[in-house]
Amino acid sequence: MDHNPYYSQNIHGPYSLYDLGNFDLDSGLRLRNAQLAYATFGTLSPLKDNAILFPTWYSGTSKIIEQAYIGPGRALDPSKYFIIIPNQLGNGLSTSPQNTPSPMNAGAFPAVSIADDVRAQHKLVTEHFGISKLELVLGGSMGAQQTYEWAVAYPDVVKRAAPIAGTAKCSSHNKLLVQTFKEAITSDPAWRGGMYSDSSAVHRGLKRHAHLFAASGFTAKLFTMEGWRGLGFTSANDFVTNFVEAHFLPQDANNLLLMLNKWQNGDVTLNGRGSLEAALAKITAKVAVIAIEEDLFFSLADIRAEQRLIPNSELKLVSSDWGHLALFGVDAGYNATIDSYLNALLAS
Amino acid sequence: MDHNPYYSQNIHGPYSLYDLGNFDLDSGLRLRNAQLAYATFGTLSPLKDNAILFPTWYSGTSKIIEQAYIGPGRALDPSKYFIIIPNQLGNGLSTSPQNTPSPMNAGAFPAVSIADDVRAQHKLVTEHFGISKLELVLGGSMGAQQTYEWAVAYPDVVKRAAPIAGTAKCSSHNKLLVQTFKEAITSDPAWRGGMYSDSSAVHRGLKRHAHLFAASGFTAKLFTMEGWRGLGFTSANDFVTNFVEAHFLPQDANNLLLMLNKWQNGDVTLNGRGSLEAALAKITAKVAVIAIEEDLFFSLADIRAEQRLIPNSELKLVSSDWGHLALFGVDAGYNATIDSYLNALLAS
Repeated sequence: MDHNPYYSQNIHGPYSLYDLGNFDLDSGLRLRNAQLAYATFGTLSPLKDNAILFPTWYSGTSKIIEQAYIGPGRALDPSKYFIIIPNQLGNGLSTSPQNTPSPMNAGAFPAVSIADDVRAQHKLVTEHFGISKLELVLGGSMGAQQTYEWAVAYPDVVKRAAPIAGTAKCSSHNKLLVQTFKEAITSDPAWRGGMYSDSSAVHRGLKRHAHLFAASGFTAKLFTMEGWRGLGFTSANDFVTNFVEAHFLPQDANNLLLMLNKWQNGDVTLNGRGSLEAALAKITAKVAVIAIEEDLFFSLADIRAEQRLIPNSELKLVSSDWGHLALFGVDAGYNATIDSYLNALLAS
Repeated sequence: MDHNPYYSQNIHGPYSLYDLGNFDLDSGLRLRNAQLAYATFGTLSPLKDNAILFPTWYSGTSKIIEQAYIGPGRALDPSKYFIIIPNQLGNGLSTSPQNTPSPMNAGAFPAVSIADDVRAQHKLVTEHFGISKLELVLGGSMGAQQTYEWAVAYPDVVKRAAPIAGTAKCSSHNKLLVQTFKEAITSDPAWRGGMYSDSSAVHRGLKRHAHLFAASGFTAKLFTMEGWRGLGFTSANDFVTNFVEAHFLPQDANNLLLMLNKWQNGDVTLNGRGSLEAALAKITAKVAVIAIEEDLFFSLADIRAEQRLIPNSELKLVSSDWGHLALFGVDAGYNATIDSYLNALLAS
């Protein structure tokens, strides 16, 4: 186990740990003493009818979700709602390659599926909190993948859903893109099949991975308009180094790879649910499918094609020069539009 | 010198070699016995007033330009025009890292600029062929970079210009994208600072580089619509392997890197030409600036911003699910639109 100081209460807290005990994965392997890290905001009402669930995206923790989406006056207002942010397995706070002992540590950690995450979160919601209905499940990117899985797997629990900038089934182009992210890390000889002694040894691979995120996570226009100046960056290089590299370099390479594999295999039709049409037809929630028009990770066309298969759904568009990574909450226009869509959905 | 069979008359010919002799580069180093490979189509008129120049793009040779753009009934009809396709320095047919002896071989080959290429091509056009006016200079991607350099450096020679899917000055986003292509290759330990004994040793890096091209060279829609089926590919993997990897894997890693550095530093304002506005104001040619709307390498916004600085120019748009790599001539709709733009320009 590598006690990477990045994954700490100091940086990402406060968060709590829910003991999943023995947790059986879709892969057939069992996690022992599995833990789900989560943060909550607001107070659960006596009738338990004000709960919202917001799973995390790739490389993110509950902290960035809190900072980007939750606050007084926002759609996700903790004075009205009880908001639970579960950290996905492998993100470094929940059970992950970097905090698991041998023989399932590091590069030997078993594959995790989006459905595994959602099953773990379902235990937290129903068994720990005793909540039987969620007012809203939402998430961005891999959080959208989890949102779709929730709506398909537990239609009786999910009253409303808002998948943002993500798909129910990973497209062939998206799989290819994720493959390039994986290759940027695994090509580093210091990765050693996941058996490095310290993730900072993989800094070259992590840096290449950060550059791929910078090149397609945002739009070309953001660079031309120097949209990063508003955040205090002085040049494109300064932005790439002190925003994108700064985000990824402290993270654990195996954690990132575990999440990338999960992302690449995200598919609500697994577990014998038949066609994509059949799987999405199981959704009974009212759904606002939100796409970022400039998104180069999850294209508008792919998102729209799925939305058309969801019974009680509407497609909502948001535009941002920040592209897919507008999710981070750095664009005030994006934040306001998302809040208006969430307010309308919650009021319905 | 590595006699890579890929760079041969058998695969890329017929082409001729023009002896540049001692050729001084912008970097300060001199190429000895430098050669410019070129192919011609059609016959130069007695008045030498029917010549067109079409420099090559990244990783391409005169062969692919011929196949994609030249033929009876096309805008570039060899029964009307004398079409010269010079192979850019470093592309494997002209003087390149892989065909140059020590001490400037392989990883020790000096940096080449877009302006170096254009100066070499100017010698071919004026001294070898005795042509004083070119009816048209055109090119795609790095060919557009050369086209802009021609129009700025030799306004008295260039009557018309058609830069396609490229810019006069590499944008900060484009530099970042090219950086990721370079890193995919140089991160391979087998690259050894360019001093491998055989480029096929660098197959892992070349493959990663091919994957980056596949992920952003085309659009997500091409994959979702399975647009590659029309070319006989059976799956996304089959397409990526047998189209994209097939294109890059036989090539020389140092050749590709030389061209990538040239691309990244492409800038018509070099050599003391002042601001971009001042440099582009030197252009006297009639210019059709052609952008591919879906292009993720050279964005429409960046291309449009430059076009507005060119006195006698028009912006022309073409749409293709093939994105930047529509340049390859694989989309009949793209080909027809380009031909109509070139016909109109040539008739003016």
